[in-house]
Amino acid sequence: MAKIDHISPLAPDHFPDLPAVGGVEFSTAAAGVKYQGRKDVMLARLAAGTTIAGVFTKSATRSASVLDCQSKIGNDGTSGAAIIVNAGNANAFTGRNGETATKAVTQAVANCLCVPESRVFSSSTGVIGEPLPHDRITAKLSEMSASFSADGIEAAAAAIRTTDTFSKGAGRTVVIDGQAIQIAGIAKGSGMIAPDMATMLVYIFTDAKISREDLQSLVSMHNQSTFNSITVDSDTSTSDTLLVAATGASNVEVDAQSHPFSEALHGVMLALAHQVVRDGEGATKFVEITVSGAETNSDAHVHAMAIANSPLVKTAVAGEDPNWGRVVMAIGKSGAKADRDRLEIRFGPHLVATEGWVSPTYQESDGASYMRNQDLQVSVDLGLGSASATVWTCDLTHGYITINADYRS
Amino acid sequence: MAKIDHISPLAPDHFPDLPAVGGVEFSTAAAGVKYQGRKDVMLARLAAGTTIAGVFTKSATRSASVLDCQSKIGNDGTSGAAIIVNAGNANAFTGRNGETATKAVTQAVANCLCVPESRVFSSSTGVIGEPLPHDRITAKLSEMSASFSADGIEAAAAAIRTTDTFSKGAGRTVVIDGQAIQIAGIAKGSGMIAPDMATMLVYIFTDAKISREDLQSLVSMHNQSTFNSITVDSDTSTSDTLLVAATGASNVEVDAQSHPFSEALHGVMLALAHQVVRDGEGATKFVEITVSGAETNSDAHVHAMAIANSPLVKTAVAGEDPNWGRVVMAIGKSGAKADRDRLEIRFGPHLVATEGWVSPTYQESDGASYMRNQDLQVSVDLGLGSASATVWTCDLTHGYITINADYRS
Repeated sequence: MAKIDHISPLAPDHFPDLPAVGGVEFSTAAAGVKYQGRKDVMLARLAAGTTIAGVFTKSATRSASVLDCQSKIGNDGTSGAAIIVNAGNANAFTGRNGETATKAVTQAVANCLCVPESRVFSSSTGVIGEPLPHDRITAKLSEMSASFSADGIEAAAAAIRTTDTFSKGAGRTVVIDGQAIQIAGIAKGSGMIAPDMATMLVYIFTDAKISREDLQSLVSMHNQSTFNSITVDSDTSTSDTLLVAATGASNVEVDAQSHPFSEALHGVMLALAHQVVRDGEGATKFVEITVSGAETNSDAHVHAMAIANSPLVKTAVAGEDPNWGRVVMAIGKSGAKADRDRLEIRFGPHLVATEGWVSPTYQESDGASYMRNQDLQVSVDLGLGSASATVWTCDLTHGYITINADYRS
Repeated sequence: MAKIDHISPLAPDHFPDLPAVGGVEFSTAAAGVKYQGRKDVMLARLAAGTTIAGVFTKSATRSASVLDCQSKIGNDGTSGAAIIVNAGNANAFTGRNGETATKAVTQAVANCLCVPESRVFSSSTGVIGEPLPHDRITAKLSEMSASFSADGIEAAAAAIRTTDTFSKGAGRTVVIDGQAIQIAGIAKGSGMIAPDMATMLVYIFTDAKISREDLQSLVSMHNQSTFNSITVDSDTSTSDTLLVAATGASNVEVDAQSHPFSEALHGVMLALAHQVVRDGEGATKFVEITVSGAETNSDAHVHAMAIANSPLVKTAVAGEDPNWGRVVMAIGKSGAKADRDRLEIRFGPHLVATEGWVSPTYQESDGASYMRNQDLQVSVDLGLGSASATVWTCDLTHGYITINADYRS
């Protein structure tokens, strides 16, 4: 893993004050899976009856722990549950040993916390293809189970980092009929970020009382406009995992039609997704790309992602070059429907291209000045219909090359 | 256009000795379209009865000259024909003015060379979105038509360069029943290189006598395994053009079933495609990626392109890191069929992964030593079927960022 000795210039000022979520406790440890001198394992204990929803990578080479999690989603019950995550080793492409290691970890957690192994979810993140030293993790379980804390979420966010330059967290409080529901989430991820789904680990906790089916329906719906709408480098990891656990401790019942809860959950997911982009490897600019006027949402999304993933667009942003020709190129290559002569392209408030050519009102100096902002908006109107999509990305810089061309990151 | 003050380390030693092709003459001029102090326009005059085949970008924002060429393919006849190409301005996304400029150039060439305008093909390459100063080109036509030369192909290859660091050419001689057919081609391209089709301009000339339909059939077939199998940065240009002109001057008749001619034409196309990759912006390594054992050729191609386009694979190659985990990741994300536990991955002769894990015979030192080569082979056997595909790419380096993050390249 490349050594990180700076914090992303796009990082938030500080980790947010997250609400304690009833029914969730955290513990962390320095197990030395790969890193020395820092916490690298987090364990979350979830109250009896917690419902758990999840979304996972679609990679054909997904890791042992992803396969294990997928097989366990749907194991409802009145028992408690747990999530354990290690950083430093992805336990991916480790053959039969990968399954053995995942089983060793989840079984040990089940024993230690007195919960069924079928309700213990695990993730591993870090280098691919090296055996997971699972005994280093299980050796810490006794220590970890003696130090659970309802306030431990910031330490948990720090423990799951790999190349991340800052810990990622977001929270919301929803008040329904005078009663509060808390939502708090953490994430890790900075490279290998691309849809299907945004490549990272995300854990969100709430004390709402909601059925697993309804929770899954909300999570799957919001996933498309959040984690599936960000990209750093178009690469997809073998370990992508999003788990959302609802403990019910608030005793406030919600369902998939509960608008305030749905909005708040979406807000937490979007905030975490944006933080992942803001920690994109080598990123110096945060770019929001909106494509409107499409015939279908899918066309809009394909165009937006083509722009967001184009190395030539991303290097132009890095160079503060208002190079709208490259945006035209990306739309052209995306494969989705577009009409060259109906395109309108805007950089922030500046209309740069219209009717198949540079806008008569556009001044290059306006575009150049706008591109010096840290947060940028690129908008394209296709002029074909009423569907739209928004995605987020960062620029492509020397920093990305330096981080990833180092020997065996 | 970023200033290039070096030659790619992957460049051939010298421009090849190309055979003169009967029925083809070249002329070049310094029209000052954008560059000063160098030739930037080439004009090829083609003998009466020349058949012309072509393949073009599928971009939805293709340029005016591409649209014009596409409309003219099929205009056979006993008259002569011409190809005119300028560097420095792509005449793309220039609205109605784009069509006017293309028409002005092709009409002037038609007048000057006494050929029908319907048989004059033009290309423009360079910056997008700026009006083409077509009068600078047409002002040189009189001078150019006084200096045609059968030996002018190397000067023509030099005139069409933009960010290219070397001129690209390839030729073959085919002997059929004791009679020789000559094939000679030139290309430009170094960035915005990706399939549909490899993003560049290519002009190939032969004195074979072949119908347009048969020539088109061979060109389209070979395009898939040559220009559609290379990638530098996954970006696709608005101007991709491949034109193949057969003058018939050799009086040797061939057709689509003529194996020696087909092979030689494929050889010229592949050599030009490889030279484009070798001039990839910032490239320091040339990488051949073969995926075998697929159920379909399409699956093999999708996997190979996913590996070739992965920024994480390309930066690992730049860092001489035998990071096979990133190859696994790229296969996983490609969307084509793969079985994690049947993959075999080789770096050159070294089997690095098998049966879902690192090979027991693999030594990291062997992989690290192999990666120090300038030309690399990555082979993946999927173990599912008998289809295969090979593609070519280069590494992703600081040089790419420097070239493309410069203001308005």
